[in-house]
Amino acid sequence: MNKIHILVFSIAFVLVSCNKTAEFKTVDKTGEQSHPSLVLTKKGVKDIRANLGQIPIFDKTLAAAQKEIDAEIIKGFDVPVPKDYSGGYTHETHKKNYILMQKAGVLYQILDDDKYAKYVKDMLFEYARQYPTWPIHPKPRSYARGKLFWQCLNDSNWLVYTSQAYDCIYEYLSEEERNTLETDLFKPFADYISKENPQFFNRVHNHATWGNAAVGMIALAMDDDALLDRALNGVNDDKFDPDEKDNDGGYIRKDGQKIGFFANVNEPFSPDGYFTEGPYYQRYASYPFLIFAQALQNKKPEQKVFEYKDGVLLKSVNALLNLSNADGEFFLLNDAQKGMSYFNSSLISTVDIGYHFGGNNPELLSIAEMQDEVTLDDAGLAVALGIAAAREKPFVKKSIELSDGANGDEGAVGILRSGDMELVFKYTAHGLSHGHYDKLSFALFDGGTEVVQDYGMSRFVNIEQKGGGNYLKENTTWAKQSIAHNTLVQNEKSQFNGKYDIGSKYHSNKYIFSVEDENIQVASAKEENAYPGTKIHRTMVTIKDKDYQNPYVLDIMRVSSESSNQYDLPFFFLGQIMQTNFDYKKLDAPEILGNSAGYQHLYKEAGALVNGENIKLNWLQNDKFYTYSAITFNNDEVIFGRIGANDPDFNLRNEQTLILRKNNAKDALFVSTIESHGTYSPVSELAVNAYSNIDDVSVLLDSKEYTAIQINTKNDTSKVFIISNENNDKESEHKLTIDNKEYTWRGSYILTENK
Amino acid sequence: MNKIHILVFSIAFVLVSCNKTAEFKTVDKTGEQSHPSLVLTKKGVKDIRANLGQIPIFDKTLAAAQKEIDAEIIKGFDVPVPKDYSGGYTHETHKKNYILMQKAGVLYQILDDDKYAKYVKDMLFEYARQYPTWPIHPKPRSYARGKLFWQCLNDSNWLVYTSQAYDCIYEYLSEEERNTLETDLFKPFADYISKENPQFFNRVHNHATWGNAAVGMIALAMDDDALLDRALNGVNDDKFDPDEKDNDGGYIRKDGQKIGFFANVNEPFSPDGYFTEGPYYQRYASYPFLIFAQALQNKKPEQKVFEYKDGVLLKSVNALLNLSNADGEFFLLNDAQKGMSYFNSSLISTVDIGYHFGGNNPELLSIAEMQDEVTLDDAGLAVALGIAAAREKPFVKKSIELSDGANGDEGAVGILRSGDMELVFKYTAHGLSHGHYDKLSFALFDGGTEVVQDYGMSRFVNIEQKGGGNYLKENTTWAKQSIAHNTLVQNEKSQFNGKYDIGSKYHSNKYIFSVEDENIQVASAKEENAYPGTKIHRTMVTIKDKDYQNPYVLDIMRVSSESSNQYDLPFFFLGQIMQTNFDYKKLDAPEILGNSAGYQHLYKEAGALVNGENIKLNWLQNDKFYTYSAITFNNDEVIFGRIGANDPDFNLRNEQTLILRKNNAKDALFVSTIESHGTYSPVSELAVNAYSNIDDVSVLLDSKEYTAIQINTKNDTSKVFIISNENNDKESEHKLTIDNKEYTWRGSYILTENK
Repeated sequence: MNKIHILVFSIAFVLVSCNKTAEFKTVDKTGEQSHPSLVLTKKGVKDIRANLGQIPIFDKTLAAAQKEIDAEIIKGFDVPVPKDYSGGYTHETHKKNYILMQKAGVLYQILDDDKYAKYVKDMLFEYARQYPTWPIHPKPRSYARGKLFWQCLNDSNWLVYTSQAYDCIYEYLSEEERNTLETDLFKPFADYISKENPQFFNRVHNHATWGNAAVGMIALAMDDDALLDRALNGVNDDKFDPDEKDNDGGYIRKDGQKIGFFANVNEPFSPDGYFTEGPYYQRYASYPFLIFAQALQNKKPEQKVFEYKDGVLLKSVNALLNLSNADGEFFLLNDAQKGMSYFNSSLISTVDIGYHFGGNNPELLSIAEMQDEVTLDDAGLAVALGIAAAREKPFVKKSIELSDGANGDEGAVGILRSGDMELVFKYTAHGLSHGHYDKLSFALFDGGTEVVQDYGMSRFVNIEQKGGGNYLKENTTWAKQSIAHNTLVQNEKSQFNGKYDIGSKYHSNKYIFSVEDENIQVASAKEENAYPGTKIHRTMVTIKDKDYQNPYVLDIMRVSSESSNQYDLPFFFLGQIMQTNFDYKKLDAPEILGNSAGYQHLYKEAGALVNGENIKLNWLQNDKFYTYSAITFNNDEVIFGRIGANDPDFNLRNEQTLILRKNNAKDALFVSTIESHGTYSPVSELAVNAYSNIDDVSVLLDSKEYTAIQINTKNDTSKVFIISNENNDKESEHKLTIDNKEYTWRGSYILTENK
Repeated sequence: MNKIHILVFSIAFVLVSCNKTAEFKTVDKTGEQSHPSLVLTKKGVKDIRANLGQIPIFDKTLAAAQKEIDAEIIKGFDVPVPKDYSGGYTHETHKKNYILMQKAGVLYQILDDDKYAKYVKDMLFEYARQYPTWPIHPKPRSYARGKLFWQCLNDSNWLVYTSQAYDCIYEYLSEEERNTLETDLFKPFADYISKENPQFFNRVHNHATWGNAAVGMIALAMDDDALLDRALNGVNDDKFDPDEKDNDGGYIRKDGQKIGFFANVNEPFSPDGYFTEGPYYQRYASYPFLIFAQALQNKKPEQKVFEYKDGVLLKSVNALLNLSNADGEFFLLNDAQKGMSYFNSSLISTVDIGYHFGGNNPELLSIAEMQDEVTLDDAGLAVALGIAAAREKPFVKKSIELSDGANGDEGAVGILRSGDMELVFKYTAHGLSHGHYDKLSFALFDGGTEVVQDYGMSRFVNIEQKGGGNYLKENTTWAKQSIAHNTLVQNEKSQFNGKYDIGSKYHSNKYIFSVEDENIQVASAKEENAYPGTKIHRTMVTIKDKDYQNPYVLDIMRVSSESSNQYDLPFFFLGQIMQTNFDYKKLDAPEILGNSAGYQHLYKEAGALVNGENIKLNWLQNDKFYTYSAITFNNDEVIFGRIGANDPDFNLRNEQTLILRKNNAKDALFVSTIESHGTYSPVSELAVNAYSNIDDVSVLLDSKEYTAIQINTKNDTSKVFIISNENNDKESEHKLTIDNKEYTWRGSYILTENK
């Protein structure tokens, strides 16, 4: 067994050697390599010490860390026998310990005070004393149980941080002490999360990224190149079962898939730097990706990690920041908890590393300034010096399309920004095990406030009262389902029948992304696999009308199918209904809307039959007035629903939705506008522009080739938007006559004023 | 008829002359009195001009007003024929006009630029031209319809502001011009809202306050002492019908009740300055009370208006500011819209007048500084000079009891403040027509955030889409009902059977208000009329335990009745349920809880039978963790309810409540604690102190004489709170033995640690 191991290793090693870099050096086993050398370097420490007192943001961060660690040193530490899930004492204590060690190590280097080194050393020796005695963590919920924590993931977190602490006090320790720690703690620790848990380590997944980085960091700290190779290229797992799944229902990996750190960089990131799981998980994975890349760059520059895949790790920093709203909160793509933002601590290092290794982009300094904190290392010093020299520029978020897929050919996320509006339109691949079944879904933000929501995930991270802080069952039964999103649901089934095996095979396709003209921006995409036999084409447009203060959104969804179906298009507005222009009948008591695919979690509160008029929903949120106006056709149905049915533990938020339903239709056209048109002040009690500016939206033409929509506004102007449904060539000439009026244009769409 | 009028007037005049002041002077009809003399004075104008450029807050306010009015002068004005309800064009335009005139008048005085005077003059002449032609406003909803607006109330608003404008340009106008304006506009305007609408003018009500102030202001501006007398003492209304009611169901007035401005000061304000309708309406009435008082003081100092009733108008300023939470938002007592705060424009003058005429209290300067605006008059100058001289001190809100009733003997509002917690306990009189049936109710705020809510009113003020911006029917059927509040409901009937005629006869009684010790503060009150034959005694306590960061609330409600009843005690927590320690059964679909008295608006979502254990409800709001722990007895029932049934227009907010129900009980004891114990950050995803610190709450003794509650906390300490139920003497000595342990103390209660 051992022999096979070594053999496989050697092969993997050679492969990588050839593949990645010719300058790959053999490991220097003499211990000559100096420490610190991971995130802090000898030179960095010297420069930091020379600048202290003149770099306010660094000085402040340092003072806070010092204050915190000084208090902790007085308090003393605890290394409890592992027992709890997240939220529980032993979990939170081990988590706290690794953060304290990392900080104390840094303080030792910068302040040159042995008490910090001693604190780290004492804690490490306590871990080294106990670790060999600990069995696998008693809590059984994970597919890869850790030793300190209930899952290897958290054990890896521990090692990523602790490696830095060890690097910092490396030279403070005697060789014998280092031997003890490495033999009793670090090596078995690294082996446990890799060799003994290949189903965790050998994946392309944020779990594996942490695992790879953890093993890689400690390998760099210990100058153990064999171990480093394991981090970069994976560990042998000849018992690999391609049918095995993790707790989220995701496959461990595809058979034959590459593994190790580089594979984890290569696969999930598109060439634009979009991380296929979405920004919430990128934020989480960002730390190990970048902290390990930084260490690798510092210690093994010949690996050229930041040049890998055309510099994708650095591009990912920019992509991630662009995936946040005006308040810096990440858009909710796939499993994501609301409120996570670039103020998260892992984004401190992301921004600092992005700045330091990515060409000192001054826009990143303005983010760092808002974060009001830097990493206490070479990268943080660079940022602090930049801010001290007042070199920051505003980080301007513009409309942007970020492709998905390792090769950038698996759809994309399109973000349209206009005025205070930010529209996120999702036409990506599935997003691995955290993906939702929500192709062609969107969400809308206004000045940082979510107005048309993506529910996010059904989980209260680290809140033990709610299922131990882990994913709740409603995440699967509600949050991932199509009906929980602002997108099409056919026959009350989720897209891809809600099956990961199917969904993960497909992606939507980009059709148009055109944002050169700030008055008319278009994102258009097609989905042809979510419901076999049905093609969906959605176009989202932001229009800035000079007569009105805010831009508005035009949403066109064309559905064509081989069969007759029921189509539901939910609209998850947030806020209180002010008025509708149609009569609805409120039910005496809410009724459960359906049986499965998320419908079992929706109550029907009211319903209406509409017949070809525009319907309008006017609502108020956060002291702003909004109106949704939708074209309807004969026998369309409107349902006011509310989340919360079949929710025995009150796990769900009880928000509303409006569902526009078409029964027994083959082809269908959904067209609507969304306006943010007015404001209210509960202090002055003044309502300003409380009503929609749009008089009427109508379909002028809808054919296989073209869809033309007319929008009449209250100031008697009339606009026509025409999109070519089959030709997205930017240079094609189009000529079209509608109602004896001729429209000619070049490109895939036109917006014109009707005289 | 005319003769009778004059006769009655003369009598009223003489009565007042004797009663109020001996120095009451006859009117100088020579026109010698100089202008401006209402809110601006000649001397004030001189001082303001001398200080411009050195009083930043005043300069800034002035610049903003100038910018606004300059733009409006260019735009021109419109005086449309009245037609709309609030929110509509003509309503909003007439409202805008009076504000513009007032500001332009002030600018004329301060900047000495005729263009501002001309703007006011032109607009006034346009009103004078059209006013005589206008019939009563076409919209029929009010018991006292105006001419410019749908109700006399808004016409009065207009006149209060316009009088100031007229005063400012008085000397700019020729005598002939003044005659025209007074004859065609001001006198008939004043007559209309007084003589022709005595059901509006002759009340003790915020409506009448505006009417009295309006007539009084224009009387002062015109130097018309007969008219001033009408303002101060009411108008003849020999056709008065004591059974007549207003639109809110309130009586016009009690037979024989005094009327006019002084009566309106005397009756609704308690000697502590509490306004019986509550702070939301005090805020609204505050402007006419104080602006007219200021004008009266400036022009008729012999009236000594600020000394009236021991200086109650100035005391009311302090009372009002104390009725706001940490963010300056007013507590929701009776009809009140959430979010109204001391940043409302009427509070600018309230604070400035309170400062200028009330002895230059430096704490008011800190409020003015937060408001970042002053009135452009003598009072505003005083504030601006105070701020420029850096004389402000923080306005420290402490625990305070504010008596209700003209003589201060009709109950009170008790406010307990401890740490970040603010508890508002209501044991007042009914509060006139805007009163709610919620004796012994409370609400709890934490750092300015409402945690245990009072629903407030069911109205979206000035949002036309929602019932023209007026009271919605759900205000009567839900918001005013007892079950909408955190107080006792017997047999699913509202207190006083929800009848204003009955409720307005009674008030609760203070029992204890003791706040000297910040570690234990007690507010206790009794209600014996809400349900005939049933006596309710509620005691609310804040306890600061040195072991815990935040104080917690202990709530004891004793009920004793002559008959067996169902008792419901709702608890309107805001936020999401995290966990309960009891099993509840969620219903498949919500059921309507009851038939009337507000129960028809509640859905039952889940229920539980409990049996003598403590129940715990742990919830999360605004990233803080809270726990409600309640003692239960055998066969108590817990109901999770949600607002929103029988709400055909989605007028209600769909928030939750927990109802603790006792069936078939004569006497009952409800005891609970409320803790704010932890925090959550969606950015760091850290949950801190997510669980209650209280292990157990139990009843040691409950007798006619004493109630003793034991609270055991997680750190193994045990506290006992004992209250004397029948003797609230502060000096009495008590001795009590419970479980062989002797407790002795002086005063009405004790909190002691159990060793």
